[in-house]
Amino acid sequence: MLDLIAYANCSHSPHAADAWRHPDHEHARRYTDLDYWQELGQTLEAAPFAGLFLADAYNVADRFRGSIEPTVRQGEQFPENDPLPLLAAVAGATDHLGLIATASTSLYPPYLLAKKLSTVDHLTDGRLGWNIVTSSGRLEFANTGAERLGHDARYDRADEYLAVLYKLWEGSVDDDAIVADAEGGTYADPDGVRFVDHEGEHFSVPGPHLVAPSPQRTPLLFQAGQSERGRAFAARHAEATFTFQLDTDSLTDYVTDLRERARTEGREPPAVFPGIAPYVAETEAAAHDLHDSVVDLTSAETGLVRLSNHLDHDYSQYDPDAPLQDIEVDGIRGVLEAFLTSDREWTVGEAARRYARHPVPEPVGTPEQVADTVEAWHAAGADGFVVMAPLVPEGFERVADLLVPELKRRGLVPETYETGTLRARIREGDRLPETHPGADGRPDGSAGD
Amino acid sequence: MLDLIAYANCSHSPHAADAWRHPDHEHARRYTDLDYWQELGQTLEAAPFAGLFLADAYNVADRFRGSIEPTVRQGEQFPENDPLPLLAAVAGATDHLGLIATASTSLYPPYLLAKKLSTVDHLTDGRLGWNIVTSSGRLEFANTGAERLGHDARYDRADEYLAVLYKLWEGSVDDDAIVADAEGGTYADPDGVRFVDHEGEHFSVPGPHLVAPSPQRTPLLFQAGQSERGRAFAARHAEATFTFQLDTDSLTDYVTDLRERARTEGREPPAVFPGIAPYVAETEAAAHDLHDSVVDLTSAETGLVRLSNHLDHDYSQYDPDAPLQDIEVDGIRGVLEAFLTSDREWTVGEAARRYARHPVPEPVGTPEQVADTVEAWHAAGADGFVVMAPLVPEGFERVADLLVPELKRRGLVPETYETGTLRARIREGDRLPETHPGADGRPDGSAGD
Repeated sequence: MLDLIAYANCSHSPHAADAWRHPDHEHARRYTDLDYWQELGQTLEAAPFAGLFLADAYNVADRFRGSIEPTVRQGEQFPENDPLPLLAAVAGATDHLGLIATASTSLYPPYLLAKKLSTVDHLTDGRLGWNIVTSSGRLEFANTGAERLGHDARYDRADEYLAVLYKLWEGSVDDDAIVADAEGGTYADPDGVRFVDHEGEHFSVPGPHLVAPSPQRTPLLFQAGQSERGRAFAARHAEATFTFQLDTDSLTDYVTDLRERARTEGREPPAVFPGIAPYVAETEAAAHDLHDSVVDLTSAETGLVRLSNHLDHDYSQYDPDAPLQDIEVDGIRGVLEAFLTSDREWTVGEAARRYARHPVPEPVGTPEQVADTVEAWHAAGADGFVVMAPLVPEGFERVADLLVPELKRRGLVPETYETGTLRARIREGDRLPETHPGADGRPDGSAGD
Repeated sequence: MLDLIAYANCSHSPHAADAWRHPDHEHARRYTDLDYWQELGQTLEAAPFAGLFLADAYNVADRFRGSIEPTVRQGEQFPENDPLPLLAAVAGATDHLGLIATASTSLYPPYLLAKKLSTVDHLTDGRLGWNIVTSSGRLEFANTGAERLGHDARYDRADEYLAVLYKLWEGSVDDDAIVADAEGGTYADPDGVRFVDHEGEHFSVPGPHLVAPSPQRTPLLFQAGQSERGRAFAARHAEATFTFQLDTDSLTDYVTDLRERARTEGREPPAVFPGIAPYVAETEAAAHDLHDSVVDLTSAETGLVRLSNHLDHDYSQYDPDAPLQDIEVDGIRGVLEAFLTSDREWTVGEAARRYARHPVPEPVGTPEQVADTVEAWHAAGADGFVVMAPLVPEGFERVADLLVPELKRRGLVPETYETGTLRARIREGDRLPETHPGADGRPDGSAGD
């Protein structure tokens, strides 16, 4: 079975830069409105989608031409709300939709993030996922006072950050510690609550964790790193990856590589969720009209702004007609891999304009045609998809009304979801398996699930 | 008119330590349940309460006997969930209840807190209040990696923290900056978005703020500091204070002092909300039975644990029969002021047991009797009350069903609240007034409201 996860921004924009200008993108006018998010959650739950994935940004980025001006003018990840309160609000209007929030290991004190995520895992009855990012922008670090390490060093720090969280989530409070003995007057058994006493290169955290064990303890771990170091991190920690690929061959290469890495780590490989932007309509012509209407809005300049901000490298300095592969940027090619490994060659300008819509497949056509693409990607290694609707919520409604019925007919998606934890849905069991490094956070001899 | 604000913990406990043991305290069994919080919000909104106030804790405290064991065993602010996701969830089930979250200026990077609070102010249509705390516990600082300054220095840092937030909230994005010009392709006007370039002793924050202007911009500012330095901070920043007083004379002294300080600052004085724990029932006997049933659960030891944790000073070292006033603890007498200025003398043990239920009035009786106390405290300077229900939600239902109708009869509380911002309800206008120091965060010449 394939799990469909809906991608949304906490800002006015759909996934495609510039497409906020489209008149059918209602999200731009309602993204600060709680009722709107609750309605969106209910639409997704009814489809059924397995989850809602919320991206995040931590600065008004200034990488393109060294200025925030293009970022602000194009509304490129600005303005941006915070995903966690949004997810909690959506949780109140849904019963089994998974809820996945992005949060950075570079900017938050781990003890505070542990508390927040445990709280939301409680409130959602274990429906929480965490998309782990390490951040890159100069202003993200400047604004939060965090030390701005190099690309790979940020992942090293993230490894330690996760080690802290595993100790807090998995090892600090026993399942039977909360005895709530009203008669005897003991609320929690001190023998079941322990300091974690983490002392590392980047973090010193004594503990104990503040929150009672939540349904999943550790939320389901998502990650989207595509660089060499990012993949090593994913192979170690991620239970699901969100990946950007332009064709099925690249996806298969990615999946093969990730599986090999996970094998070396002694783990089950993560479930792989490529992004996909389906342009589905009742007729092929209507689907192409829709696609054209979005593509026509997309400018190469906004793509360059996004690329510059994401890769922390100013792409205004290159000739748009130069071949992309001639540009060597040490260590940060991650999100460009999709272009560099794809079946065709790209100029900087072409790649930028395509990047403005994310490097993901864009099947355009009838439900049958789009379902064929979904099947092909499934065969190439996709365990599910992060669905990046061209327009929101209109594009999710199209998927729910047109594509999902066809996928159900083919037995590719479930008719419905039972209530339960997100981990049980996407992986297996409510808690991290023993083969996951999170199990190292447990006290010796304790069982996970 | 008096505004009633309901106090709740994000943990199992009601305000009174040990009272989680009471069989009628349903909150202990449901505090991790989203539906429960939504029901509670609806109960409060119907009464009508003006708001819900959520306390917070940031560590499993170890001050009493230098050990977490008593804290854990008594369940004293452990375990503890995070208030912000909870408030967002409650917002989805209510339309005009104010929502006030505690957050610390010592533990959070200000840029991230600014983003979170702006997001919740959007989602609640301007119903957000922020209870500003500066934190004190050793482990709070150790766990978050924040520098542990002395008591007064923490307030100095908080002054700077607020200055950063005012710049982000009030000055970084103009009201008309979000033009959303779909035709021309301009989402935001770069001239209306600016860096804040804060460089201070404790924080360096370039900005710009990430979030579009929310209904209130700065959430309504609450504060509960009772120390000399805490009052100075309140007089400068707070729009409402939550204060602990044991009798009306002490309240009047506090209000007089706060008004004088605010006058010196050139501001309207904050609205004053003393805590109150009403034991109301249809008969006087039933009210006394209820009071006895809570008081009987309260141990002096838990009071000493709480006092030690709150004052960051180990009270296990004193003879419980020693007079409280003989104990001199430099600079941290704040929350003991209520005892030291009250009409009677207290031993350490007596004060501890009383402190376990917070130093607030406990009117016990029929609706008429409790309303008489409310009126007397109103006459002594209370603009409203933080209602600390002995048992939750049972105690709020009692207030809604028994006390509020009597207060309405006396014209002391409104029949209902209109939808609107929390600031418009508790103070005046949607935005900070020009006399508030937050206005200094605005660009020169701009108007506030």
